[in-house]
Amino acid sequence: MPSYAAPTKDIQFVLHDLLNVSEQEIPGFSDLETDFTSAVLEEAGKLASEVLQPLNVVGDTEGCTLENGVVRTPPGFKEAYKQVCDGGWPGLDCDPEYGGQGIPYVLHTAVGELFSSANMAFQVYNGLTHGAVSAINVHATDAQKATFLPKMITGEWTGTMNLTEPHCGTDLALMRTKAEPQDDGSYRVTGQKIFISGGEQDLSDNIIHLVLAKIPGGPEGIKGVSLFIVPKFLINEDGSLGARNGVSVGSIEEKMGLHGNATCVMNYDGAVGYLLGQEHKGMRAMFTMMNEARLAVGLQGYAQAEVAYQNAVTYANDRLQGRDVTGAKYPEKAADPIIVHPDIRRNLMDQKSFIEGARALTLWGANLIDRAHRLNDKEADGLISLMIPVIKGFLTDKGFEYATAAQQVYGGHGYIEEWGMSQFARDARIAMIYEGANGVQALDLVGRKLGLDGGKHVMAFFEMVKTFIKDNEGDERLKGDFLDPLKAASKDLQSAGMYFMQNGMKNPNHALAGSYDFMTMMGHVCLGLMWARMAKAAYAALDGGASDTAFYETKIATGRYYMARQLPATTMHLARINSGADTVMALDAANF
Amino acid sequence: MPSYAAPTKDIQFVLHDLLNVSEQEIPGFSDLETDFTSAVLEEAGKLASEVLQPLNVVGDTEGCTLENGVVRTPPGFKEAYKQVCDGGWPGLDCDPEYGGQGIPYVLHTAVGELFSSANMAFQVYNGLTHGAVSAINVHATDAQKATFLPKMITGEWTGTMNLTEPHCGTDLALMRTKAEPQDDGSYRVTGQKIFISGGEQDLSDNIIHLVLAKIPGGPEGIKGVSLFIVPKFLINEDGSLGARNGVSVGSIEEKMGLHGNATCVMNYDGAVGYLLGQEHKGMRAMFTMMNEARLAVGLQGYAQAEVAYQNAVTYANDRLQGRDVTGAKYPEKAADPIIVHPDIRRNLMDQKSFIEGARALTLWGANLIDRAHRLNDKEADGLISLMIPVIKGFLTDKGFEYATAAQQVYGGHGYIEEWGMSQFARDARIAMIYEGANGVQALDLVGRKLGLDGGKHVMAFFEMVKTFIKDNEGDERLKGDFLDPLKAASKDLQSAGMYFMQNGMKNPNHALAGSYDFMTMMGHVCLGLMWARMAKAAYAALDGGASDTAFYETKIATGRYYMARQLPATTMHLARINSGADTVMALDAANF
Repeated sequence: MPSYAAPTKDIQFVLHDLLNVSEQEIPGFSDLETDFTSAVLEEAGKLASEVLQPLNVVGDTEGCTLENGVVRTPPGFKEAYKQVCDGGWPGLDCDPEYGGQGIPYVLHTAVGELFSSANMAFQVYNGLTHGAVSAINVHATDAQKATFLPKMITGEWTGTMNLTEPHCGTDLALMRTKAEPQDDGSYRVTGQKIFISGGEQDLSDNIIHLVLAKIPGGPEGIKGVSLFIVPKFLINEDGSLGARNGVSVGSIEEKMGLHGNATCVMNYDGAVGYLLGQEHKGMRAMFTMMNEARLAVGLQGYAQAEVAYQNAVTYANDRLQGRDVTGAKYPEKAADPIIVHPDIRRNLMDQKSFIEGARALTLWGANLIDRAHRLNDKEADGLISLMIPVIKGFLTDKGFEYATAAQQVYGGHGYIEEWGMSQFARDARIAMIYEGANGVQALDLVGRKLGLDGGKHVMAFFEMVKTFIKDNEGDERLKGDFLDPLKAASKDLQSAGMYFMQNGMKNPNHALAGSYDFMTMMGHVCLGLMWARMAKAAYAALDGGASDTAFYETKIATGRYYMARQLPATTMHLARINSGADTVMALDAANF
Repeated sequence: MPSYAAPTKDIQFVLHDLLNVSEQEIPGFSDLETDFTSAVLEEAGKLASEVLQPLNVVGDTEGCTLENGVVRTPPGFKEAYKQVCDGGWPGLDCDPEYGGQGIPYVLHTAVGELFSSANMAFQVYNGLTHGAVSAINVHATDAQKATFLPKMITGEWTGTMNLTEPHCGTDLALMRTKAEPQDDGSYRVTGQKIFISGGEQDLSDNIIHLVLAKIPGGPEGIKGVSLFIVPKFLINEDGSLGARNGVSVGSIEEKMGLHGNATCVMNYDGAVGYLLGQEHKGMRAMFTMMNEARLAVGLQGYAQAEVAYQNAVTYANDRLQGRDVTGAKYPEKAADPIIVHPDIRRNLMDQKSFIEGARALTLWGANLIDRAHRLNDKEADGLISLMIPVIKGFLTDKGFEYATAAQQVYGGHGYIEEWGMSQFARDARIAMIYEGANGVQALDLVGRKLGLDGGKHVMAFFEMVKTFIKDNEGDERLKGDFLDPLKAASKDLQSAGMYFMQNGMKNPNHALAGSYDFMTMMGHVCLGLMWARMAKAAYAALDGGASDTAFYETKIATGRYYMARQLPATTMHLARINSGADTVMALDAANF
């Protein structure tokens, strides 16, 4: 059976050595002292490894069941959910006015990693509630907030997001679900939505569905889409639960993974809905919470890689097979543990250097979201909007790749479900697809975000890299190992951007054919930047006489690996981009 | 539900335009006229798409069951197996002296692709029988051959390979299974073997297990391992089935995929076994058939990518979502099919250009095996021994990668089991592990094959690339698009080899830390060579007035894509290799 230990030490390093959260002048950040974040992470880590992780295999094996319109989550999920709610975790970063604790989003994100690593299927129920809370918090009327937020923040009620329909996912302009206005100001929602995570379950007393639908007579296409609150049970005047609304689960999907989370087909049959935000501005309301939602999915990518990596390390230390080619390490044993073999290390270092870089990038991104929201900082908002497709796309691609790589360490045992490694890969796979498939992230990055505000944000990103390099070039410890490779990779990325500018004007396909490579390249440059910054922070800690020298030295060595062995990927992606769209678009559709 | 159509046209292109099989002066090859191979492939393709493919999802969903020592294969497998046997497919390339048809291995391999694409789990039963037949054919006594081969060649009896034990897979020196000599010249085999594909099933009347075991008192370690024939039912003097032997299935594994194939724990409890080949030379006997077995697994990699690709293309043409950015392609429809989008094409072209290159490489490899066996050609044998880890490792890595990429084309539907795309990825995953995990292939390539016979074979490979480039540089159509990229990639590969030579002597870790990258690089160079050759063949066909111009032009365009967009990966792998072992080996095992 697989195990999981919360990497609190590494998270603390990112929060305090790298980001210096408690010193940032953002409202609420001064609370984030080392002791406080440590206490929160310890508590969350305990819940994750002792309660949620043991249910992970159960969730995969037992899955969810649907009988007579009732969805049952796997055995133990209900009790665990109660424990999570009792601990106040759903409301950690929510509005104190409605019962939340108002703690910065960056710490909520760190806690989210622990829960996601321990039990991704379980955590998805919380994640969607969190998204719904954010949307209601920003767009709802005061009365709506008072009705829905308090019970969603305690977790008594959960939330869902209803976008996809059988014939449309990415292209929501094709949407058919209708919302007909009623005399009392409410709407009647009719249509079918699919892929609704937690659309029905037995964890919460009520389920608050946020549903995209079209009001008849509104504008065509995507501009005629509005967002509605559709509760499973209507709410009485006094706040108690009333009649069952006209929404029901049609079926639940058999999936490759994430079995513990019910993926539902939802049928709306004249269900009572309440407009959330303005008519026909549903997509805008959705976009408000998109950065958070996509960051949370990017996090799932590396969170699955993290737990898979932990188990791969354990196995590599336990499994005796062959001998160290430079001489037996344990001559008294029948064979050496496989961690002595260079290719096993190559694999583990690929995983480790990715995961730690990804964690830094994600928490830095969460920190930017705090800055954007709590200081209304437009620069931070622009920068994180640029980063989001990279965080979502790159971290989930690589998260799956490394969960698969961790499985490989186990040899044949990795393929046997009993060992648990297959589940990490199967669960991680969905993160590349939902919340906008990664190809759509690449399109968002290249087709939209690069040019946002006249290209200001990508320029700011390059400037940030350049400034960091310039400011630290005097440090010989950083220069050759970190800054030079970062400079080369950043130059590759700029060349790719230049190629898009020069060629995308005449034919947008020249940019779009390279969009996926650009996203991946930019992911590498971001992780390269994170590693250079982390190396600087680690050297600073060592210079300052930090006692845990092994931790900081390992951090630097891991960073060196990333710069030497991962960052050179940018040259390949640049070559692919520079070859343009001609070979990509050459074939008639009939000749594939 | 997914579908499958045998790519007979493309296989015919490889056999006849590329390899010119019927003109090769190898015994039996003159039979391989276009009409004959076409008839065989059509027939096999029909069986594959009409009988085997419809059972693929059934096999995945129903799986195998074990009850009271009896393994039941999924519904329909037994009937399909009978059809395969009735068609004479198991004996296609087997020794005519024992009832085989003696057809070249290259055509057997092409047929194997069709069966593997259609139903990999089913085909694994046949694949292991084929391997056992090869081992018996080479190493058995005449009496043993007469006893076992005829019924294995008809498929009435199947075969298995028993190597792995719970505590050892790669390192078979640790093996514990014992074979004690008896007075009558037989042995009694005792021990436990795991991961035995088809160890027990209800398809065949008897199962002939080939079992590695140690004869007490023999040499220590791997040099004391012998190979035994252990039939499930003993054979009477008259050839009829006798008593049940002391071998039984302990359990079957729950796996990530390949559910239709029973992966068994086999318990040998004083089972009667017959020595196959010489005492203590069991590994040598195993190695005889290793090239074929590993080539067959490499084939599984691209065969799964092929069927996944076919379905992804269908979906990309059917699914309407968004508009061609250069202008609506089908303004009369609600949206354009997603195949108009550059990133969908980038994905499909990655798949297509890999698959066709992989097919060429595999059939060329099978052709080399024919040359080695039928002409006793040592050069061909050396060259294919060098290629085998590349064919096994690279094609299964990429096969899984592209089966996953095909799944991605489906968006959310790719994650739902009902659509069948998940199964292709889950089934393909095992090919990276069994028959020597891919890290072990990389070790075999760099640690053993590069230096084989004084490095003669890798030199021959480079010479082959160089000569091809030199001989064709006058053709402007090939030069820029194909030969120049091939030259650059081949130079990268040679530089990597040079790095190993210069640094591996002082510290073998400098070579082994780069072994996986070298294997991947070499895979790219091999596919680059195949594409350059295929382009030449396609131009020749066009110059010769071939009627199907679309096919040949598509072939050339697909090749251009590979050269422009895949081959540049060598620069990244070279950079990784050149960074040496220091960053790979830096950490103490405790610091992972």
